[in-house]
Amino acid sequence: MDKILRIDVGADGGPKATTVAVGEYAGLGGRALTSAIVSKEVPPLCHPLGGENKLVIAPGLLSGSAGSMSGRISVGCKSPLTGGIKESNSGGQPSQVLARLGYNAIVLEGNPKDNTLYKVFINKDGVKITPDNSLRMLPNYDLIAKMKAEYGDKIACISIGPAGEMKMCAASVAFTDMELRPTRHAGRGGVGAVMGAKNIKVIVLDDSGMPIRAPKDPQKFQDANKRFVNGLKSHPVTGQGLPAYGTNVLTNILNEVGGYPTYNFKQGRFDGAAKISGETQAETETKRGGLATHGCHRGCVIQCSGVYHDKDGHYLTKQPEYETVWAHGGNCGISDLDKIAMLDFLDDNYGIDTIEMGATIAVAMEAGLAKFGDADAAIQLVHEVGKGSHLGRILGNGAAMTGKAFGVERVPVVKGQAMPAYDPRAVQGIGVTYATSPMGADHTAGYAVAQNVLKVGGDVNALKPEGQVELSRNLQIATAAIDSTGMCLFIAFAVLDQPETFQALLDMLNAFYGLNLTGDGVTELGKKVLSMERDFNARAGFTPQHDRLPSYFKSEKFAPHNVTFGVKDEDLDKVFNW
Amino acid sequence: MDKILRIDVGADGGPKATTVAVGEYAGLGGRALTSAIVSKEVPPLCHPLGGENKLVIAPGLLSGSAGSMSGRISVGCKSPLTGGIKESNSGGQPSQVLARLGYNAIVLEGNPKDNTLYKVFINKDGVKITPDNSLRMLPNYDLIAKMKAEYGDKIACISIGPAGEMKMCAASVAFTDMELRPTRHAGRGGVGAVMGAKNIKVIVLDDSGMPIRAPKDPQKFQDANKRFVNGLKSHPVTGQGLPAYGTNVLTNILNEVGGYPTYNFKQGRFDGAAKISGETQAETETKRGGLATHGCHRGCVIQCSGVYHDKDGHYLTKQPEYETVWAHGGNCGISDLDKIAMLDFLDDNYGIDTIEMGATIAVAMEAGLAKFGDADAAIQLVHEVGKGSHLGRILGNGAAMTGKAFGVERVPVVKGQAMPAYDPRAVQGIGVTYATSPMGADHTAGYAVAQNVLKVGGDVNALKPEGQVELSRNLQIATAAIDSTGMCLFIAFAVLDQPETFQALLDMLNAFYGLNLTGDGVTELGKKVLSMERDFNARAGFTPQHDRLPSYFKSEKFAPHNVTFGVKDEDLDKVFNW
Repeated sequence: MDKILRIDVGADGGPKATTVAVGEYAGLGGRALTSAIVSKEVPPLCHPLGGENKLVIAPGLLSGSAGSMSGRISVGCKSPLTGGIKESNSGGQPSQVLARLGYNAIVLEGNPKDNTLYKVFINKDGVKITPDNSLRMLPNYDLIAKMKAEYGDKIACISIGPAGEMKMCAASVAFTDMELRPTRHAGRGGVGAVMGAKNIKVIVLDDSGMPIRAPKDPQKFQDANKRFVNGLKSHPVTGQGLPAYGTNVLTNILNEVGGYPTYNFKQGRFDGAAKISGETQAETETKRGGLATHGCHRGCVIQCSGVYHDKDGHYLTKQPEYETVWAHGGNCGISDLDKIAMLDFLDDNYGIDTIEMGATIAVAMEAGLAKFGDADAAIQLVHEVGKGSHLGRILGNGAAMTGKAFGVERVPVVKGQAMPAYDPRAVQGIGVTYATSPMGADHTAGYAVAQNVLKVGGDVNALKPEGQVELSRNLQIATAAIDSTGMCLFIAFAVLDQPETFQALLDMLNAFYGLNLTGDGVTELGKKVLSMERDFNARAGFTPQHDRLPSYFKSEKFAPHNVTFGVKDEDLDKVFNW
Repeated sequence: MDKILRIDVGADGGPKATTVAVGEYAGLGGRALTSAIVSKEVPPLCHPLGGENKLVIAPGLLSGSAGSMSGRISVGCKSPLTGGIKESNSGGQPSQVLARLGYNAIVLEGNPKDNTLYKVFINKDGVKITPDNSLRMLPNYDLIAKMKAEYGDKIACISIGPAGEMKMCAASVAFTDMELRPTRHAGRGGVGAVMGAKNIKVIVLDDSGMPIRAPKDPQKFQDANKRFVNGLKSHPVTGQGLPAYGTNVLTNILNEVGGYPTYNFKQGRFDGAAKISGETQAETETKRGGLATHGCHRGCVIQCSGVYHDKDGHYLTKQPEYETVWAHGGNCGISDLDKIAMLDFLDDNYGIDTIEMGATIAVAMEAGLAKFGDADAAIQLVHEVGKGSHLGRILGNGAAMTGKAFGVERVPVVKGQAMPAYDPRAVQGIGVTYATSPMGADHTAGYAVAQNVLKVGGDVNALKPEGQVELSRNLQIATAAIDSTGMCLFIAFAVLDQPETFQALLDMLNAFYGLNLTGDGVTELGKKVLSMERDFNARAGFTPQHDRLPSYFKSEKFAPHNVTFGVKDEDLDKVFNW
């Protein structure tokens, strides 16, 4: 893995692929690499859909190796949704496959000369780019079926659905899973719209004939990996909760603590929570012949995914994640798990971020476009997005635009990006992350829910402002580093709780690359990534005033704890003082 | 004139009016007053449609006096379109009437308790606020007819149309003219949406029984006013060009110099210019029994307005302004003056900014929603806004949202507000004003077209960057001061060219208030206003990066001069260094 594939989509005669040495970007992976390239090569004031923006797709440092959990892949660009830098990452197979093909990153750059749509095929022999307008407006599932028919089933795909082609700000980039289904998504920030603006519909990867990436010290690597896996398996979250119920194990937990935003962030508990909980979901999946425990990529030992079948026992969608079940469920007053699963499928198929879409529908419900709780209306709204109706053009561009279009004040966004499934008043640590992350409102950027609610890796009172800034700071630093390794973020539960598991991770990196990385080195990497990102945003016009929650979170009390967001502005401004 | 009327629309039992002494705001009028109140009382990070925002309506320092040209009225708030501070001003009768009623300003504040719509009636006896849901979604013309039937024809009205009620970012606040028609608008920045968010449909003013405002030194005032009027009459622009052809005299001029943006700012000349020029317009008006020379308020000596009749000789609309004829005409490739007049009428009736609307339709045409040149399609698009269809919700929120909804890169906005009728590449001084004005792209904020093109008050080469920063700086300062007097900005042509006319203006202010204001004092006032506005914007999160044109203006050459915008970023940052 020592080269970058650059595809100039504006070249004469159609997109032109050039493979260059990794050069100055050597040693960086995942988010560190996407943010470095975007920060250095993209003018911060450029139009996100214009020729100056770039889409960078990068596997992590350990992707493609025998290291467990190393299947994340990062997508970076200037975000059409936030106007700032964006890194959104995903599971699925392409990370491993792209890494084995030897690429540190694919960079889509330039401005297409016309509207021709292209597919890119990459295997051990090189890169082939073909115009294929027959793919136009194909949903992801149909698209991947077509690619499978054309290239066989040993492939992994990176693609956009109709939402990406229509350059919507909620458009995702889809990554296929182990069953070659487009179920894993880099959802946030409209990265799919940037791929759409480059007129690249799908990137098909085939690593046949490419070996697994070899560590510098195979024995040490194998040993460290074993300790790492044991650590994950012995932790209650990564060894029990996530495998059994998936991320949706959180529904009951968040609802119980009163931090589960319902009815467009109106209150912290939902009557229908039990009906859509991870426990109910797992039982339903098992009963119908789906799967409650499943991995999204080779080498996963947590197995937090699953397969959701409909009432007749046919595949409907992958197991919807907690944030999806919340976004399309509780936040919209919807408690029908089958309808939520259908919404998950539609989002995946049209290529839309489930969090942004659910938050948007809740805002639309507040605007009176549908009644809270009306699942069929919600499904219809997602179809509007997929077909690109005028209403769909509003909704597909996210909660902020929807609020503006319909004159709604209560729009839960930061930097234009919708908040995920944790209310910042009842979980104040995540509120600090929402407010200050360079990514906009993003739970994964510094998951203070761990210490505020789950009491993993520390214990900070969720309802009070005290200690949240330091908590979010440390988590944002750690996350920026983990997002650069290609490791699934869920390893953090064990890594933060168990020093020996953290050491095992370091040992894996050191054995693979022949390094002497310490915990401090990891912290330095995280700080370096965040600093690059914040520097880009500053050059794009972001200020401390953009590191704020919408003002109603400071005045509107949130039941059942009747609490407002209490972290002061001047303390938010200290998050990045290190 | 020594009191402020504050209406708390969130009071128990419905809106409550309180009249308070002008107090700390004494000595300020028009824009100086609206910006002072907004800057001091509105939290910069509040939601523009929420209870923390305020709508301030203020006549100028000389409004309601016998001073000529003193009929402008300012509307201020945090803008829903730009997110920054906004002052948008208008002609019409309400400025004079409100001033004679003794009010320095009306301030609409608070958050309505429910959806009830209200009308406000103000006369010498006080203020009466009445719920009236029968007014809901009435277009401005119907609304004013109803008010006339109810309150007689001695009134002046301030109102919103359906666009304001729907809280659209392109919604205007309408002011009636001398014929009690809602033809004058504070159009820019979505001020109508803020009035809509306060649930105030119309403010009816009746100054019966109130005397004309008396100067401290009547003789000196009368003498100064006479010199002022003579100065205006003797200047070729204010004494000949504007009276004869109205503002639309500019179509041929701008087209001739190649600075007339057509087809969504694609090129600087339009084949159909002659058909929609002020000369053709005046001839058409006269032939059909309309008026080519007319004032919009009592005491106007420039008489740049007019009355436009349809082919059958019936009133269609007031004489469309140059910017309107450009926005709905040349910029959309439309050269049918009757259709443009119909678009002007529809905008006034629905309560929409004609500049934003025309720019938006051009972006929609670039997105493929209609063909350039298709006037009937343009009319249909404005109807979509008026009825609030989903498409109308996009278009009614302006060019920036329309560009985002349909994935268009070429969107000519600064701070989210559409550029008016002068291309910043061919008229680089106005480009500096567009980029740096705290208001967003606004030609009136510093009308460098005067020196760049008309060669009034100086001569600076329009195609070169040299001298434009200093030019825009001086004009922005002068404009901020003039906008505070209540004087029509068109006096600037004579005032900038003729020192004795400028002195006459100073003498009027001094005689009226018993002051010793000098030219330096005017400059200080202008700087003070701009500083307040920029301070608000800084606290709202604006940075130098927001004082930029969209990047394509720096790379896309503009015919016929094949020029790009050449003023450097670091020079733009010097505009407010004084």
